[in-house]
Amino acid sequence: MRRGSVLEGVSIAYETWGEPNEARDNGVMLFTGLSPSAHAASSPQDQSPGWWEEMVGPGRPIDSNRFYVICINSLGSCFGSTGPASTNPKTGEPYRLDFPILTIEDIAHGGYETLKALGLESLRAVAGSSMGGMTALAFTMVYPQVSSGLLDISAAARARPFAIALRSLQREMIRKDSKWQEGNYPPGDGPIAGMRLARKLGMITYRSAEEWLHRFGRERIPEERRSGDAFCIDFEIESYLEAHANKFIGQFDANCYLYLSRAMDLFDVADHGGSLASGLDKVGAKKILVVGVESDFLFPVAQQQELAQGLDRNGRSVQFARLGSIQGHDSFLVDMDSFRPVVADFFNTV
Amino acid sequence: MRRGSVLEGVSIAYETWGEPNEARDNGVMLFTGLSPSAHAASSPQDQSPGWWEEMVGPGRPIDSNRFYVICINSLGSCFGSTGPASTNPKTGEPYRLDFPILTIEDIAHGGYETLKALGLESLRAVAGSSMGGMTALAFTMVYPQVSSGLLDISAAARARPFAIALRSLQREMIRKDSKWQEGNYPPGDGPIAGMRLARKLGMITYRSAEEWLHRFGRERIPEERRSGDAFCIDFEIESYLEAHANKFIGQFDANCYLYLSRAMDLFDVADHGGSLASGLDKVGAKKILVVGVESDFLFPVAQQQELAQGLDRNGRSVQFARLGSIQGHDSFLVDMDSFRPVVADFFNTV
Repeated sequence: MRRGSVLEGVSIAYETWGEPNEARDNGVMLFTGLSPSAHAASSPQDQSPGWWEEMVGPGRPIDSNRFYVICINSLGSCFGSTGPASTNPKTGEPYRLDFPILTIEDIAHGGYETLKALGLESLRAVAGSSMGGMTALAFTMVYPQVSSGLLDISAAARARPFAIALRSLQREMIRKDSKWQEGNYPPGDGPIAGMRLARKLGMITYRSAEEWLHRFGRERIPEERRSGDAFCIDFEIESYLEAHANKFIGQFDANCYLYLSRAMDLFDVADHGGSLASGLDKVGAKKILVVGVESDFLFPVAQQQELAQGLDRNGRSVQFARLGSIQGHDSFLVDMDSFRPVVADFFNTV
Repeated sequence: MRRGSVLEGVSIAYETWGEPNEARDNGVMLFTGLSPSAHAASSPQDQSPGWWEEMVGPGRPIDSNRFYVICINSLGSCFGSTGPASTNPKTGEPYRLDFPILTIEDIAHGGYETLKALGLESLRAVAGSSMGGMTALAFTMVYPQVSSGLLDISAAARARPFAIALRSLQREMIRKDSKWQEGNYPPGDGPIAGMRLARKLGMITYRSAEEWLHRFGRERIPEERRSGDAFCIDFEIESYLEAHANKFIGQFDANCYLYLSRAMDLFDVADHGGSLASGLDKVGAKKILVVGVESDFLFPVAQQQELAQGLDRNGRSVQFARLGSIQGHDSFLVDMDSFRPVVADFFNTV
């Protein structure tokens, strides 16, 4: 692990779409945001829709007829890859807080080892959004020979203090829930109240004020859905957040959330050589698309612009797409009409 | 109370600067944001600096040599005015959640009764920032004959869903703290953990990402200030939020916070006649200054612009000042160099 300590017997969960070609050089690796699993899209093995269903598959922008697409469940997550909720082989108990400090570079490392295990030596592109965009960037810095392309969406070369403040507060919500028990909650009986608050704050930062103004305005929930408690849900926007929180809790392990959230704060390209420029100099990808969204206030578009400008040297071909989607940071998950053509154009050229 | 129920034996705490003139027509009434007391500035009676120290006093922009300045502690607050923490004369216990639903109009009513008790019938201006700006607006709608001027800073004609979402989450943080006890915590032993989280989220929404980028960047706290706990404070921005939270908790009653926060969500000028336009038609003030700040994302500048445009009819003189301060919603408390001249210009003409 980058910050010291060794993990043994690591598993990395992944899913694939398409087949490797004979030269085994048609791979595309996808890294995810904080919370999704490796199930980016449906497949014959798992027909449920994935988190990027419209983007990955036969004839889709990341075309599995052309590419061998591999999506990685992040090291530190809880959907098959080794993380704080996994059993520590030394103790037979979950790692919990004995899990070593996790960095974005460690997650990229998990992707690299998976690639080797699949018998591939190169990639056409490494891609990711949000935390996944940080991971894709780390991947091509740390393994510069592997991928000729980079698609980096709604991410950043380093976390800024505003985003750190929000994530730090989300972690505090979880840690201050008495059921967290300093990380030692029994499996399946974690700090649900804290996770609910953290998820609601997440949703607030993942969307945009403009979207909600159009979508909810000051609409109230109908009388029959009111609990009657003091300070109960009154506005539709409150009900929307409640529904999202209900969907999330129980699915995601609290300690895994803490580790992954912290990894985003710690990420800084400047750790690779002392400055943003020296870090970006190490990037191996030559064909690059950076995408940002104007209404994103968690990873503001100035950060994607900074990244694109910093990468645009050393003979690289760098495109920057600034999208007007109003759904904020989450636009890449929901505004498919804006993202589909941009992503398709990029993959037509790699 | 606007939403029904009656409060008996109400107290409204206030402070004053300057003296009423002979005609008793030089009054200026200040309403506050959610958390301050009526102590806007130092005075011979209380020499500690107030929350708007540079703005109120002899020779200052709201000049107590000219005006009789009255600052009102909001009904529902806990700094002298009757609120959920006050004793209910019917039970001898604090009101707690038996306090009736509080609206911004009720707070304005508290100001109006104070004015009458002071023997004044008119005001040169009613002024306020944030929640206080909502209250000043409500005042001049509900008592249109009283004040000829209105200064409305970083406020809005109604809450939008993004701000409602944030405040709703802050309230949930408090309500989910087991020490809240459905509002029945013993005085002095309230939901401190929840209040701490709510205050941190408050600070995040009161300032701006840009300010923190310049001020903190990715600076770390020195080794000797680290607790060594898992997920302990690491970045300076985390330490800043912690210091603000420590200052706040203990000072402010949790139930009062819940009532005042909810009052902001409920406020809607359109409740006065069915539409924004019909509500603003009722505004009695003729000389109006609306101020907004570009970096404010809690009360975005589009809301002040909407307010100024909506008021600019019926022969009123309406000015709109759009300030470039980078301190977000809190700019009126900290960016005195931008606010001082704007406020002084307004009071030179009322």
